[in-house]
Amino acid sequence: MASSLLLNRLIKALEIQPGVGVRSATRIAFYLLDRRREDAKALASILSLAMEHIGQCPLCRDYSDDNQICPICASEKRRQSGLLCIVETPLQVQAIEESESFFGQYFILHGHLSPIDGIGPQEIGLDALETRLKSGEIKEVILATNPTVEGDATASYIGSIAKHLGLSVSKIAQGVPIGGDLDNIDSHTLMASLKNRKPL
Amino acid sequence: MASSLLLNRLIKALEIQPGVGVRSATRIAFYLLDRRREDAKALASILSLAMEHIGQCPLCRDYSDDNQICPICASEKRRQSGLLCIVETPLQVQAIEESESFFGQYFILHGHLSPIDGIGPQEIGLDALETRLKSGEIKEVILATNPTVEGDATASYIGSIAKHLGLSVSKIAQGVPIGGDLDNIDSHTLMASLKNRKPL
Repeated sequence: MASSLLLNRLIKALEIQPGVGVRSATRIAFYLLDRRREDAKALASILSLAMEHIGQCPLCRDYSDDNQICPICASEKRRQSGLLCIVETPLQVQAIEESESFFGQYFILHGHLSPIDGIGPQEIGLDALETRLKSGEIKEVILATNPTVEGDATASYIGSIAKHLGLSVSKIAQGVPIGGDLDNIDSHTLMASLKNRKPL
Repeated sequence: MASSLLLNRLIKALEIQPGVGVRSATRIAFYLLDRRREDAKALASILSLAMEHIGQCPLCRDYSDDNQICPICASEKRRQSGLLCIVETPLQVQAIEESESFFGQYFILHGHLSPIDGIGPQEIGLDALETRLKSGEIKEVILATNPTVEGDATASYIGSIAKHLGLSVSKIAQGVPIGGDLDNIDSHTLMASLKNRKPL
């Protein structure tokens, strides 16, 4: 316990960040007080602004300021591609964009189907997705949910809706990661990579 | 890059925290947006309050709200002990308090002498310390600066001032840490522990 009440409250508040326990929070609080007071005030103001004003793009559900349409959805070139990639989180959009290998549009579920937790089709925005799929602009749906039981189940569910609407549906490949050492790859991944082998 | 400008600014601002790089900052920003918006707003408000209102106790220079005298300096019992422990940082006060082995008062240098960086006696508050040592309330000065070249030099400097004023001066023991394995202790520490050996 520090002798300043505000300092104790600050340490407690910093602990809401993932990966920050009481030790790190204490170190961060002292560091900011000691050397970065102005930067810390700027952080406080942008943090409050961000929490207040960051909403979702009405088309892809990615984060966007004041619910504006995001630059990806606004791009005419991407719209003309007719490709829609379904992902679970905004971070996955960033990861795919960084790979510079996809130039279509996205739809973000913000989770996956999980009936046991009360997360059904509505909670992951499937009614909005269906409206979008029916718009006539989308030709192919690419399923890029997480390679987990829940992710795969969610992908199957969405795949069946898209097929029902007459769209082509594909799923990103599952197999051994590039540069990986076969010794260190788990047996489920090896099994998938053998099952999905491609003729040369 | 996320598609929200506010989000990019938030990620950049979160990186001022020690130990938080761009990857962690991104993870923290998405996590707060996704699940902890109210807590993040509370963090923003306490962060701004703390940076504005946390000052220093006028006696020991520990952090205190609005420059009030801190509870340790306000304690009559601690004042009567006549002991003054000199440390480099407020975190060291916390560490010593947690050890529950010292019941005197503190003086915090907020650094150590480092002429090459322009940090002289005035920058670490030695004029305030001298006034305090002359007050007649202090009987023994305990030097607990870091066991580094700069910390030791600073301790010697303060020690000579205190001796000149006729006070007793001591320095915390340097040696092998309790529970440590001798195999893993650096040679400087071993050298110090041999030099400072105590007859049984």
